[in-house]
Amino acid sequence: MRLCLYYVVGFTCALSAGVYAQAGVQQAQSITGAELKGLAPVSDEILKVELPKAEEADLDNGLHLMVLEDRRVPIVSVQVILIGAGGYYDPPDHAGLAGFTASLLREGTATRSSVEIAEALETLASRVNVSTDMSLQAATMRLSSLVEYLDQTIALAADVLLRPSFPEEELALFKTREQAGLIEQRTRPRFLAVERLAKVIYGDHPAGRTSPTPETLDRTTRDDLIAFHREHYVPDHAVIAIAGDISMADAFPAVERHFGAWASSGTRPPTVDDPEPIGPSRLYLINREASVQTNLVVGTQAINRTSDDYDILSVMNQIVGGGPSSRLFLNLREDKGYTYGAYSSFTAQRYRGDWDASTEVRTEVTGDALAELLRELVRIHDEPVPEQEFQDAKRSIVASFALSLESPNALLNNFVVRHLYDLPDDYWDRYPERIMSVTREQVQEVAAKYLDAGRLHIVAVGDGEQISGMLTSFGAVDVYDDQGTLIETVGGDQ
Amino acid sequence: MRLCLYYVVGFTCALSAGVYAQAGVQQAQSITGAELKGLAPVSDEILKVELPKAEEADLDNGLHLMVLEDRRVPIVSVQVILIGAGGYYDPPDHAGLAGFTASLLREGTATRSSVEIAEALETLASRVNVSTDMSLQAATMRLSSLVEYLDQTIALAADVLLRPSFPEEELALFKTREQAGLIEQRTRPRFLAVERLAKVIYGDHPAGRTSPTPETLDRTTRDDLIAFHREHYVPDHAVIAIAGDISMADAFPAVERHFGAWASSGTRPPTVDDPEPIGPSRLYLINREASVQTNLVVGTQAINRTSDDYDILSVMNQIVGGGPSSRLFLNLREDKGYTYGAYSSFTAQRYRGDWDASTEVRTEVTGDALAELLRELVRIHDEPVPEQEFQDAKRSIVASFALSLESPNALLNNFVVRHLYDLPDDYWDRYPERIMSVTREQVQEVAAKYLDAGRLHIVAVGDGEQISGMLTSFGAVDVYDDQGTLIETVGGDQ
Repeated sequence: MRLCLYYVVGFTCALSAGVYAQAGVQQAQSITGAELKGLAPVSDEILKVELPKAEEADLDNGLHLMVLEDRRVPIVSVQVILIGAGGYYDPPDHAGLAGFTASLLREGTATRSSVEIAEALETLASRVNVSTDMSLQAATMRLSSLVEYLDQTIALAADVLLRPSFPEEELALFKTREQAGLIEQRTRPRFLAVERLAKVIYGDHPAGRTSPTPETLDRTTRDDLIAFHREHYVPDHAVIAIAGDISMADAFPAVERHFGAWASSGTRPPTVDDPEPIGPSRLYLINREASVQTNLVVGTQAINRTSDDYDILSVMNQIVGGGPSSRLFLNLREDKGYTYGAYSSFTAQRYRGDWDASTEVRTEVTGDALAELLRELVRIHDEPVPEQEFQDAKRSIVASFALSLESPNALLNNFVVRHLYDLPDDYWDRYPERIMSVTREQVQEVAAKYLDAGRLHIVAVGDGEQISGMLTSFGAVDVYDDQGTLIETVGGDQ
Repeated sequence: MRLCLYYVVGFTCALSAGVYAQAGVQQAQSITGAELKGLAPVSDEILKVELPKAEEADLDNGLHLMVLEDRRVPIVSVQVILIGAGGYYDPPDHAGLAGFTASLLREGTATRSSVEIAEALETLASRVNVSTDMSLQAATMRLSSLVEYLDQTIALAADVLLRPSFPEEELALFKTREQAGLIEQRTRPRFLAVERLAKVIYGDHPAGRTSPTPETLDRTTRDDLIAFHREHYVPDHAVIAIAGDISMADAFPAVERHFGAWASSGTRPPTVDDPEPIGPSRLYLINREASVQTNLVVGTQAINRTSDDYDILSVMNQIVGGGPSSRLFLNLREDKGYTYGAYSSFTAQRYRGDWDASTEVRTEVTGDALAELLRELVRIHDEPVPEQEFQDAKRSIVASFALSLESPNALLNNFVVRHLYDLPDDYWDRYPERIMSVTREQVQEVAAKYLDAGRLHIVAVGDGEQISGMLTSFGAVDVYDDQGTLIETVGGDQ
C-alpha cells in the first residue's frame, strides 16, 4: 500500500449542545495521513475526548459512591463492588467458596424467601445479580431499575447483600445444579485449555484456579457461607457506582438510607500478591479423543493494571491479535484457512496478569498453525511494525474507545477502574492521546520483554493420537487426560 | 404475596431538555399497584414513550433510506438490508449458497484484493460485515465508521456489495474453513437439537434447513456465487438504515454517490410461503453417547410478524419462559434444581414461525424435567395467570423495551422492523400501551391456540442408553444418530 504523509488542519466535530452531552468528543492534533487505493485519503488526527465527570462521595462507613447522571431514559444501573469478597480470597483449601456465597445471596434473607425475592424483582421490573470469579478481588452486585422503583430495588439489594440467610434447602439445590455443571464443563475443550493454562502461568497463586472441584462444592456448609459473608462483605473498601436518571443529590440519601447502617469493619484494604515468576517454556497436551479440532492456547505472564507498559501492550496486542485485522487473524484465517479466527488478549489487575493467544484449528493442521502462531510472536519483536499498520492499530483502539462511550455503563466502568487503581483524574480524557503517542520502538521493546519465546507456555486440547507427534517437534509434551491428571511426558529431552 | 390494588395519579418523569432527546419516555395512565412485603408499594403506570423519528427517503433505483440522527459521538452505523439475498432464497438443491455469497463478498472486488480490503478498513478504523441465515429473507451488511471517514467506508462497502470478484483461491480457503466447522458443529448438542426441531416444525420449508451440507459446500463454484449475486443483490427492495452523527441532508448524497448507479432490476418484491401446517406431536431422540446432560427442546409453529396475536404471544412467552422470573425458570431451576436455566422464545417473520422452550438438564432427571416443562405449557392455558404475575410480566417487557431505547441501533432496528412489515407509523410509540392492555383471557386463548399439546414436538439430545426409557413414557420416540440418520423407532404404538 502506497503511503502519502501530509498534514491536515485539526477541526472540531459538531457537538451536541444539549444540557447533557454524554461524551464530548473532538478530533485534533493532526499527525500523518494515508492514501487508500481508489478512496479519498484519510487523516490521522487524534480523537480528543472530554468525558463527563462522575460525582463522588464517601459514606461514614467507608462506602465510596460514584454517580454518573444520564437523563435520557428513566432507568438507573447500579454496581456494588465488594473489594475483598471475590474468588481471589477463597480460603486456600476451599476453592469456590466466594463464588458459592455470591450465588446464594439471592436465595433468601432474614425476612424473604428465594421466591419472594424473585417475585418482588418481577413486580419492580428490576434486576439484581451478584457474581465473582476465582481470579477477582471483588464480588460485584449489579442491579438495574426504573428510576421510579430505585428506592425499593436498593432496599431489596441491601437486604440481599447485608442479611442473607443461606437456607439449607437452597444450598442443597445449588449443589445439585453446580455438580452437573462441574462435570459438563470438562467436556468443553475451551474450558480444559483455560484450566491448564491458568495452572501453568500462575502456579499456586489464586489465579491458577479456574473452577471449584466437586469435592469443595460438596463439603460446603451453611456455616461456611455465613462465615465468608461475615468476614468479606464489609463496606470499608466497597464502591457503589450508579449511572442513569439520577443525581448525586438524590442518590446519596437513597444509598445512605439502605447501606448507612452497614457497620464498618475497620479492616485494612485487602492485599494481593504477584504470582511467582513464570518458569521456562513447555508444552501441554490434553487428550480429548475423537476431537475434530484442536484448541491451541499460548500464554505467559505480563503486567499489572498500573504498569507503565499498559498502553504499549494494548497497542502491541491490537497488532498481534486484537481483531479481524490483526496478524494472527490475517495469517491463520485469511491466508492459511486453518481456522475461523485467532485472537490474543491480556488481563491486568492489581497482581501480574497474563497475555495469551488462542485459536481453534482443524486437527491435521495443528502443528502448522502452532508454528505460524509462534512465528508471529517472534516477528512482533524482531521487526519494526510497518508505519501504516502501526497507525491503523492505534486508531482502531481509539475508535473502539470512542464507540464505547455511547454506553453510560461503559463510561462508568472506566471511572470505576480509575478509582480502583488510583489512576490520575484525567486518565481517560488523555487515553486516546497516550495511545497515539506509543512508538514502534516501544512496541518492539514490550514484545521482547513479555513475549520471550523461552517463557511461552503452550496448551493444546485435541485428539492426542493425531496431534502428539506434531507437538513433540516443538519440545517435550506433558500429556493430561480430561480430568486434569498427568498421564505421561513424550518427546523432547522430557 | 398479598395484593393491594389502588389507583395512583400519573406523573411525568424529568426529561432531557437537550436539542437531541434520544427517546422521550414518560409514565402515565395508572392502572393498579402492588404492595411488596417490607417495601414501599409500587404503581403500575404505563411507560409512555415518544420516540424520535427516523427520516426516510427513496433513491430512484428503489433503495429506501432511513436516517436516525444522534450527535452524541462522532460515529455512524449503517445497515444495508438486502431483501431477497438471504438464505431463504437458496436454490432448493443448493443449501447455503446465499450464506456463502454473503461471506465471500468481502474477499475481493474488481479492483481490491481481500487483504487490501482488510487493510483499508483498518486504516479507516471502520468495520464492514455481511451475514445472513438460512431462515432469513435478507442478507444484511453492517458497517460502522467514524463520521469523518464515512464517505470512504461507504465507498468501500459499495465496492464490496456491487462489484465482488469471488476469487477462486478465496473460495478454496473458505471451503477449507467451513468444512471443518460443518464437522465440528455436529459435536455440539445444541446444534443437533435445533437442527432436528427445525426439520420437524418446518418440514420442506426453507426454514427447515439449519446448515449447508459438506456436499453443497464442496460443489459450490465461483459461477454459482456470481449468478446468485447477480440475481439477488438488487436495489429495488433494499433498505439502507443509518444511525449516528449524520443528518438525512448529509447522508442522502453520500448514499446516492456510491449506490445511485446500482441498476434497478425491475423485479417484484420477493415472496415467502408459510410452512405446511405442523403434524401431530412426536418425540425425537438424538443419541449422543456419554453425554452427561440432555438438551431438551419443545417446539411448535406459531405466528408471523404481522399477526394480531403478536403482542399477546409476547406476554404469554414472558410468563412461560421469558427470563429468570418465568415459570420454566422458577420451576425447573429454582424449585427442582434440574438445570441452570430454562427459557422459551419465538420467531416471527413474513412466514409462520416457531415457538419453542429449551433447557439443558442432568441426564438422570430428563424424564422429570420434560414432565414439568409440559406441565407448565398445560397450566398456561388451563389456569388464568394470577393478576400480580400477569402485571409483572407485562411491566417487565415494557421495562426491557425502555432500556433498549438507550442504543441508537436498537431504536433504528425498531424502525426497520416497522418499515419491513408495513406496521403503522406509531407502532413503537404505542407498543407499551398495547402490551399493558393485553388481558389474561387473551393469554389463555393464544396459549390454547398455539401450545396445543397435540402439536408439540419434543427433541432430546443425550445419552440414548440412559434416557430413551424415560422418553418412551411420553410416546413413540424416533431415534437418530448425530449425523441426522434415523436409526429406529422405540416405545409407544410407533
